[in-house]
Amino acid sequence: MSGIITSGQKKLMLFAGRAHPDLAKEIAKNIGTELVPTAAYDFANGETFVRFLESVRGSDAFVIQSHTAPINQWIMEQLIMCDALKRASAQRITVVAPFFGYARQDKKHRGREPISARLVADLFKTAGADRLITVDLHTAQIQGFFDGPVDHLFALDLLADHVEQRLDTSQVTVVAPDAGRVRVAERWTDRLGCPLAIIHKRRDPEVANEVKMFEVVGDVAGRTCVIVDDMIDTGGTIVKAADALFEQGATKVVATATHGVLSGPAVDRLKNSRISEVILTNTLPIAEDKQFDKLTVLSIAPLIGRAISEVFSDGSVTSLFGGQS
Amino acid sequence: MSGIITSGQKKLMLFAGRAHPDLAKEIAKNIGTELVPTAAYDFANGETFVRFLESVRGSDAFVIQSHTAPINQWIMEQLIMCDALKRASAQRITVVAPFFGYARQDKKHRGREPISARLVADLFKTAGADRLITVDLHTAQIQGFFDGPVDHLFALDLLADHVEQRLDTSQVTVVAPDAGRVRVAERWTDRLGCPLAIIHKRRDPEVANEVKMFEVVGDVAGRTCVIVDDMIDTGGTIVKAADALFEQGATKVVATATHGVLSGPAVDRLKNSRISEVILTNTLPIAEDKQFDKLTVLSIAPLIGRAISEVFSDGSVTSLFGGQS
Amino acid sequence: MSGIITSGQKKLMLFAGRAHPDLAKEIAKNIGTELVPTAAYDFANGETFVRFLESVRGSDAFVIQSHTAPINQWIMEQLIMCDALKRASAQRITVVAPFFGYARQDKKHRGREPISARLVADLFKTAGADRLITVDLHTAQIQGFFDGPVDHLFALDLLADHVEQRLDTSQVTVVAPDAGRVRVAERWTDRLGCPLAIIHKRRDPEVANEVKMFEVVGDVAGRTCVIVDDMIDTGGTIVKAADALFEQGATKVVATATHGVLSGPAVDRLKNSRISEVILTNTLPIAEDKQFDKLTVLSIAPLIGRAISEVFSDGSVTSLFGGQS
Amino acid sequence: MSGIITSGQKKLMLFAGRAHPDLAKEIAKNIGTELVPTAAYDFANGETFVRFLESVRGSDAFVIQSHTAPINQWIMEQLIMCDALKRASAQRITVVAPFFGYARQDKKHRGREPISARLVADLFKTAGADRLITVDLHTAQIQGFFDGPVDHLFALDLLADHVEQRLDTSQVTVVAPDAGRVRVAERWTDRLGCPLAIIHKRRDPEVANEVKMFEVVGDVAGRTCVIVDDMIDTGGTIVKAADALFEQGATKVVATATHGVLSGPAVDRLKNSRISEVILTNTLPIAEDKQFDKLTVLSIAPLIGRAISEVFSDGSVTSLFGGQS
Amino acid sequence: MSGIITSGQKKLMLFAGRAHPDLAKEIAKNIGTELVPTAAYDFANGETFVRFLESVRGSDAFVIQSHTAPINQWIMEQLIMCDALKRASAQRITVVAPFFGYARQDKKHRGREPISARLVADLFKTAGADRLITVDLHTAQIQGFFDGPVDHLFALDLLADHVEQRLDTSQVTVVAPDAGRVRVAERWTDRLGCPLAIIHKRRDPEVANEVKMFEVVGDVAGRTCVIVDDMIDTGGTIVKAADALFEQGATKVVATATHGVLSGPAVDRLKNSRISEVILTNTLPIAEDKQFDKLTVLSIAPLIGRAISEVFSDGSVTSLFGGQS
Amino acid sequence: MSGIITSGQKKLMLFAGRAHPDLAKEIAKNIGTELVPTAAYDFANGETFVRFLESVRGSDAFVIQSHTAPINQWIMEQLIMCDALKRASAQRITVVAPFFGYARQDKKHRGREPISARLVADLFKTAGADRLITVDLHTAQIQGFFDGPVDHLFALDLLADHVEQRLDTSQVTVVAPDAGRVRVAERWTDRLGCPLAIIHKRRDPEVANEVKMFEVVGDVAGRTCVIVDDMIDTGGTIVKAADALFEQGATKVVATATHGVLSGPAVDRLKNSRISEVILTNTLPIAEDKQFDKLTVLSIAPLIGRAISEVFSDGSVTSLFGGQS
Repeated sequence: MSGIITSGQKKLMLFAGRAHPDLAKEIAKNIGTELVPTAAYDFANGETFVRFLESVRGSDAFVIQSHTAPINQWIMEQLIMCDALKRASAQRITVVAPFFGYARQDKKHRGREPISARLVADLFKTAGADRLITVDLHTAQIQGFFDGPVDHLFALDLLADHVEQRLDTSQVTVVAPDAGRVRVAERWTDRLGCPLAIIHKRRDPEVANEVKMFEVVGDVAGRTCVIVDDMIDTGGTIVKAADALFEQGATKVVATATHGVLSGPAVDRLKNSRISEVILTNTLPIAEDKQFDKLTVLSIAPLIGRAISEVFSDGSVTSLFGGQS
Repeated sequence: MSGIITSGQKKLMLFAGRAHPDLAKEIAKNIGTELVPTAAYDFANGETFVRFLESVRGSDAFVIQSHTAPINQWIMEQLIMCDALKRASAQRITVVAPFFGYARQDKKHRGREPISARLVADLFKTAGADRLITVDLHTAQIQGFFDGPVDHLFALDLLADHVEQRLDTSQVTVVAPDAGRVRVAERWTDRLGCPLAIIHKRRDPEVANEVKMFEVVGDVAGRTCVIVDDMIDTGGTIVKAADALFEQGATKVVATATHGVLSGPAVDRLKNSRISEVILTNTLPIAEDKQFDKLTVLSIAPLIGRAISEVFSDGSVTSLFGGQS
Repeated sequence: MSGIITSGQKKLMLFAGRAHPDLAKEIAKNIGTELVPTAAYDFANGETFVRFLESVRGSDAFVIQSHTAPINQWIMEQLIMCDALKRASAQRITVVAPFFGYARQDKKHRGREPISARLVADLFKTAGADRLITVDLHTAQIQGFFDGPVDHLFALDLLADHVEQRLDTSQVTVVAPDAGRVRVAERWTDRLGCPLAIIHKRRDPEVANEVKMFEVVGDVAGRTCVIVDDMIDTGGTIVKAADALFEQGATKVVATATHGVLSGPAVDRLKNSRISEVILTNTLPIAEDKQFDKLTVLSIAPLIGRAISEVFSDGSVTSLFGGQS
Repeated sequence: MSGIITSGQKKLMLFAGRAHPDLAKEIAKNIGTELVPTAAYDFANGETFVRFLESVRGSDAFVIQSHTAPINQWIMEQLIMCDALKRASAQRITVVAPFFGYARQDKKHRGREPISARLVADLFKTAGADRLITVDLHTAQIQGFFDGPVDHLFALDLLADHVEQRLDTSQVTVVAPDAGRVRVAERWTDRLGCPLAIIHKRRDPEVANEVKMFEVVGDVAGRTCVIVDDMIDTGGTIVKAADALFEQGATKVVATATHGVLSGPAVDRLKNSRISEVILTNTLPIAEDKQFDKLTVLSIAPLIGRAISEVFSDGSVTSLFGGQS
Repeated sequence: MSGIITSGQKKLMLFAGRAHPDLAKEIAKNIGTELVPTAAYDFANGETFVRFLESVRGSDAFVIQSHTAPINQWIMEQLIMCDALKRASAQRITVVAPFFGYARQDKKHRGREPISARLVADLFKTAGADRLITVDLHTAQIQGFFDGPVDHLFALDLLADHVEQRLDTSQVTVVAPDAGRVRVAERWTDRLGCPLAIIHKRRDPEVANEVKMFEVVGDVAGRTCVIVDDMIDTGGTIVKAADALFEQGATKVVATATHGVLSGPAVDRLKNSRISEVILTNTLPIAEDKQFDKLTVLSIAPLIGRAISEVFSDGSVTSLFGGQS
Repeated sequence: MSGIITSGQKKLMLFAGRAHPDLAKEIAKNIGTELVPTAAYDFANGETFVRFLESVRGSDAFVIQSHTAPINQWIMEQLIMCDALKRASAQRITVVAPFFGYARQDKKHRGREPISARLVADLFKTAGADRLITVDLHTAQIQGFFDGPVDHLFALDLLADHVEQRLDTSQVTVVAPDAGRVRVAERWTDRLGCPLAIIHKRRDPEVANEVKMFEVVGDVAGRTCVIVDDMIDTGGTIVKAADALFEQGATKVVATATHGVLSGPAVDRLKNSRISEVILTNTLPIAEDKQFDKLTVLSIAPLIGRAISEVFSDGSVTSLFGGQS
């Protein structure tokens, strides 16, 4: 027989874009390795350049990037990293997007809109991504936008453990801040054994077309309300929700979400609100000037690190993270 | 200059599978044409055969099939029709699926599950479908599963017009029968100007693992409750929801949904329930022995017919059907 | 150097749809493993659901399904299984279809027909199948419909061994029951060293358009005729062929085929015919009420089991199974 | 409304490779147009270059090439023509291959062989071909190798008309020269109302492994035998078949085939054989030095011309050519 | 015959991203239409949103975007526009990129680099683009990166007409500023009938590794030198080239390029250089604060406008723009 | 847990087409293995057939073919080999094309031309190629035509080592024979530390349209000129370049190129020219009757052998071959 036979090997390699280096380093540490040294910079006209400084041939490559602002910049960088890995003969490329960008544009709300979340999933496929690891997608259906395996992790245990330590759960009502979050809220009520309320955004019949009133559906008088969301962006919804809850007699309001987008006026709104505590994870970088007293940031790195290790060693991610992937 | 020049033409042709011939004929009548004569039958071992009896070359083909039981049979028949049209040189193939099968399997609820709704969308693409027309998808994100244009129609106006004629809307509370339907219910509250309640399925702390209690969130005492859903399948959820509503003091319960799946015990459950009226459309066939006094079936054919006409003539479907496509 | 290195491993896992569990179990036994525990059921409206109860990450997955009636049901189930495996990170997915459905629709017999065998091959590709193992395709060209490796196994040796034990081959004439089976019949004449006859379906000039006469081409007087076919479906052709052979003086007729479709009137026809023995394999399930005295069913499980083992261990299937794949 | 509206037009343009210019010109004449002027030549190292000398933007392009020897050269030229048309914005590209190359490699005869007919179909798809027109494929299944519309034309009527004029069909027996041609022969027996015989290639038990004997199955004594084949390549099979027929008492043998490959010793073999007449079409060029007294060549150009015209004008090819496409 | 027949129409629609509205408006004016009203904005976290305010169904859509800084932002916006058009049933989508971003990353200069220009071409394909119109690609090979028609326009005539009006061409030597531009420079020498010189970047043997000397190859003493480039980015190369030319005795230096990237220190460098005139086109926006006395900006809008009109009406772009596309 | 686990293995297998068997054997020897025994021949009508005589299942397959004349023949053979490997379950297929055919058709020079280099890259992808190894592409951008990893090797060190041994590099001027080769020439000047000159093909203003004059740009009087090219095809350019150099006072001219196409009059032209030495590699076969006294042929086999070994063992090709892949 012709040919040369050798025994096979697998090599995990970890790559990080420039969006959120602290998280990437923490994940690497959790796994027990280093990030692959990488040259990445922008040319004067804004074109992004990436080059890896070690051979990646045959590697099982994990490419970490948080889709924070400027989001188009970081998505494009991650696409370019995938392209470079594909052309340099990586064996398998896994996109690790702790926060998956454009997740809110997951359907056409009206005619002639894009479905950008599907587009982004397709762009990663085109660039060479074989699989995807992400945390708390805006809607779980986005898993189906990617044509390949998606490991969808949940921060629920991480966040709920913290809530349980801080609050008397017998006093807690879980609150969904809008119609799209009720399913998530139900997972919390199952976890904490609490009742549910929701905020219903209703068109104000007295006023012009698009103005919405925040109406509380469910009983919150005398309760500690925990508003649960997937992300806090400008903070507008969550603060108005808190106001509505207090108006209906809530005694305390805590807000929790996986992704701290915290754009524009978010920090000011939250600081000045009557919300007692805001609990987030670090799927997105939260700059020092965005941190404030009432804010608690829990690290998602151990969860992502374990997922990467299991994916690399073909272990079950399902058993570790609640049966969901 | 070499070559032969002629003026271009477009030809709309309408094809129907065997799942729901009445609806297909009614749509054809609405458009002002006939269904293309088609030979379709199953061989003794269950293989499906389809052949069109007129030339379809160059046509703008619309292939109507309702994904009713036996659903795999009808999906496969529609795939085979698309394949035959593709190979017979149809210019463009539009799948018209008034009820889109497998829509509820739109995400992995737990590990090692399929995402069958994405699979079905991909199967249609593979078979040659260029575009999709459907009504009230289980979740709007399914639009993003298909890699091409999707015209997503809404039965809301059709159903709501009927409700407004029958009920005093000042007495009505719109009820979402579970967490996944709250968004739909909000569209109803905006349309009718009514308050909202939801049914919260909560794990019963007293009993074993998977049992859920039906808890009403929101105020329904003394109200006429209109439960709004996208489909009624076995009727279990909706009847338990009605019971919970009456328990909380509702005076009357009406149920409405776009798709009347009505499988297994559904008809008996609904007949024997305290629900006053059940309002459905005919996106799925409702056999005579499944009809009962309290059931109203409205025809979706005019809506689909107008959508097909607009798609064929490159008109705006958005303007007709509420800005959604 | 960054990264973590481990040695590679391969893991064979065997999955079975619900069409023919006995064969799947027998194959598993031959290989020396168990089928992966799987939850599979149909919802009330006919939608199929599948979930694997063990981690399949990184596995070399073989998915066994016999395309028996209701054939669309079982093809769709196998597609859904492939989708679930793909999304759960199986390393490679091999569809094992002992009988490949829709194989007879392998060309357009007339205009505006589908080529369903190509469609089915494409559907499996779309669902995630990397390769295909099958037995005695209706035409060998179907191998070319699948864009990937196909291991095409032959039951010839299994069936011919049995025939040789039962009959004096010096008295045997091999008979092709129609024009499409002559190639297969020639493989039998080479194996047994026998002469050949064929049944020629000829338009009866006396009668209306589509009626065909069964004419024997070749000499069968005083011979033991072995009719060889790839499948017996309704049995009509094979029984008429036997009649024509007896009419031309055959002393004995035996019928053999790989696939026992046996639909509709097949069993009655065969039982009541003058055919002495019918020899089939169990690529398709043959229900107890379809079994009859003259019927012999040989097990295909050892052949498929060896093929799977060789494919898994990168051995040569060609050397084992006669140079054909 | 923004935008500029004009009425649509369609433009048929005919392109020809260099393999068989006479046929292409004759087709053009039949349609009533000219071939598009084209620069085509080979560089010194054998690379092929093609450039069209008129704008092809928006055209309905038909690219004619006969896959004659040197066949790889002409297939590559046709691929390059498709690429140039695609990049120059042709609206639709139809490959016209009167003889489809590599059709005999339509399956794996043994392990580790290519399926070149599928490969060629895929190469045309890759190069930009949208559809295919061809004549008398070696096996009809090859239609299914191309992922798009295939118009499969038949020379049967053309050839049979000629045979009927020359021979007393009451004396004719149609002969299939091997197992693969029996189906084609049956179409002839249906057309002419004649009996059938076949040539069975049987392993000679007296001699070493691969030698085959030509055995006549069916009665040919005193008959005029018409051997029907799809192509005559080296002529070996057909001449040996004729010898076997004469040995069994045939009084006259005529050979007919659609494709005159006539490679190597074919012409000498046919000239020196006892075959009375050889009837072919000009799907392939037959050089003057390959023509001989007993050879009749009928023109396929009218058939292909009508097919192209119908395809262009979206007429039914099925109705013209016997229901087959 | 079933079906409804109408005459076909074509509708040109022009869309513009937010990168360079002035150019888009000027192109629209040249064509004689308006840009389609479009809502486009960025969410607080940087996600881009686009919605078209008129029906685009069936349109021949041209999407104009200049890839200026922030380039990732504008590329992503154009991708999202394509996605929205695809999902809203545009008939054909043409990406108009007067300057094609990432064109300089058209190969791997060293190992483990991306080929971003190919990536960007693939991303547009994925988003739904059918074709591409662009001006003066960095290398002509980039045409081959896009799998579809590319109309590659040249600004040479526009720029050269201006040069001829300003300079005595008998005194002119055309200068290629580096090895990659020599082909472009040869087109200029053919157009102007002038001699050629090139700037050779040579490693300085005296100094460390990466430092390069600018060496003039060819005779420039006493000549008016016209440096021709495809783009001026930071201006570093072109200013050093001018210095080298003056050192070798050039009497005057003029610089011309199609694309005025003008990033970072470019304007200052050019203003302070001994270059007499800088001639650019407006393929990229040149902000008011980047304009200076010696700068001439010619409008590319008429050229692009004519190309769009010809593409829409299936005219020949080749004949208009010098045989190149 | 179900399933069977074994340790993974990798198996390198080397395959060679018939274009240049000597090089393939030499590469095999360098690697320390044998070529896989292969049956390859052409049928009488020119169709190519290939079959591998050993199992290739699971192999890491490298398929060597030099694209020499008849080039379409050898490209098609290599495509067919890839198809056979894909269908026989090779694990990974690497096309090794020491000279990549059609590389000069890497862009449209005028309208309605193909981009054959992209086409060829796509054809290999379609046939099943996963990756590509090649030497000195005509333009580096061709790397981007293939959608996968490309290892682009350089013969520069091999050729330059030889030049340094033969010539006094202080006397050498490196000459680019046309505008497209200046980049390559600059790599030589960096390697040898020599000055640069280029040959500028300029339209002769005195004569008709397409005639070009060979003008030397740069100083060559009294110098030893080394003309560096990627290939020598008909030798016309290089001989005219040499004449122009002597005319400008060069004392000696040596020509070097990676690929010795040497078609048509090349050998006579070079023999009869004043060029002292012609240095090539054996990426293409150079028949004995094409060899002449002044010709030196260096073997590329060690370089390709090392690349294959590194690719197989996931080593870094970049580190070995100058950082370029």
